[in-house]
Amino acid sequence: MELNDTSLLSYNGLLEYLRGFVTERRRDLIETVLAQRTRHITIVLENIYHPPNASAVIRTCECFGIQDLHVIADQKKFKANSDVVQGAAKWVDIHRHTEPEQNNSEVCLRKLKEQGYKIAATTLRQEKYTSLEKIPVNEKVAVCFGCEETGLSDTAHQEADYFVHIPMYGFTESYNISVSAALILQKLMTSIRSDNSGYWKLTEEEKQVLRMRWTRKSLKHAEHLIQRFMSDNGIQR
Amino acid sequence: MELNDTSLLSYNGLLEYLRGFVTERRRDLIETVLAQRTRHITIVLENIYHPPNASAVIRTCECFGIQDLHVIADQKKFKANSDVVQGAAKWVDIHRHTEPEQNNSEVCLRKLKEQGYKIAATTLRQEKYTSLEKIPVNEKVAVCFGCEETGLSDTAHQEADYFVHIPMYGFTESYNISVSAALILQKLMTSIRSDNSGYWKLTEEEKQVLRMRWTRKSLKHAEHLIQRFMSDNGIQR
Repeated sequence: MELNDTSLLSYNGLLEYLRGFVTERRRDLIETVLAQRTRHITIVLENIYHPPNASAVIRTCECFGIQDLHVIADQKKFKANSDVVQGAAKWVDIHRHTEPEQNNSEVCLRKLKEQGYKIAATTLRQEKYTSLEKIPVNEKVAVCFGCEETGLSDTAHQEADYFVHIPMYGFTESYNISVSAALILQKLMTSIRSDNSGYWKLTEEEKQVLRMRWTRKSLKHAEHLIQRFMSDNGIQR
Repeated sequence: MELNDTSLLSYNGLLEYLRGFVTERRRDLIETVLAQRTRHITIVLENIYHPPNASAVIRTCECFGIQDLHVIADQKKFKANSDVVQGAAKWVDIHRHTEPEQNNSEVCLRKLKEQGYKIAATTLRQEKYTSLEKIPVNEKVAVCFGCEETGLSDTAHQEADYFVHIPMYGFTESYNISVSAALILQKLMTSIRSDNSGYWKLTEEEKQVLRMRWTRKSLKHAEHLIQRFMSDNGIQR
């Protein structure tokens, strides 16, 4: 049986046991971060070919409290650039869509729609845009960024519910992708955080899974401690 | 005599002559950008050691319509990274403070204060911060960013009028520097642009100098055309 976070939660007392090995400061930090975490907004990166760009977006998302990122890679391998990410990739869920024989953009975006996300496409190709302030954030939003050279695919344009862009005031045609993501997230996250009902927060069940995962990631010898807990409690695996 | 933009403006008809060789689209773009340009907000980079970071900030500033950047470099050479800047460095003024035998931070920040700038230091070291929304933008503001590893110098902390930081919601301790600059500029620039009096805009004189510079930069053979104008008009240099 694989030691995934959900299955580990079925062992009564294991999470508390592991938490006993984590500093109080870290336990508090995990709770603070959980309270601010969201899956209500997600980011989709489609065929970003320059690894530091993707890595910088991951770091930005983690800072803003975004839990999920979707990475569509039709041709190129996606690998987070450790120098830029600064360990941020450890704390977020990166969902990869990289099957060689399918339209990964279609699969990813349709799945997000089934999950209730509206697709906000960042593009320079349109004539009409929805202002970021007017995106209804009571619905879930997936903000999509395309390839640095060619932008989002036709599929992403077809699946989009909104087209968005950031006003430009200089000669340069676009912001760097991690800067774009940050500017958009600053607006969307400010809107959702201003709502005290907290509709955008994680459920208790989601929090518990992340509590297990982040506790494990905070421990140098988590797997060893889990083995010990199992053996001390006579649990066969 | 050096062919600087201000001295070239003393030749009647030269700017119009040069503009004749620029496409109408480019001339319009120059006017649009000039109308949105500001020196009311400036950015100071103190001992940023990773060149792509400085370059990304330059690009971000250009996109936001910021004309001046100050680069303090006590030990390291500052060189814009062409891949990230995407030509943005061509359109902004980068003021370098790199004398080997002086406290460049003190010289730079005091000079900015003499010019009427308030110094906003981005730092994680303080206990009290001024919220970005509360910075009085009717006064000029210089936002300072320090070294990626050690932050702003003691000098910058001493000279600061405000301490600012961006709220963090994850495990990661800081945003990437170009993302920080973008998030701060989005807030400050939104505030100043919402004021229709335009106090933050360039003077007509400043615009004329930049009009000359940007026209020259838009031409492949600007220096050759200037020579021809001089010789056609019997001007001795």
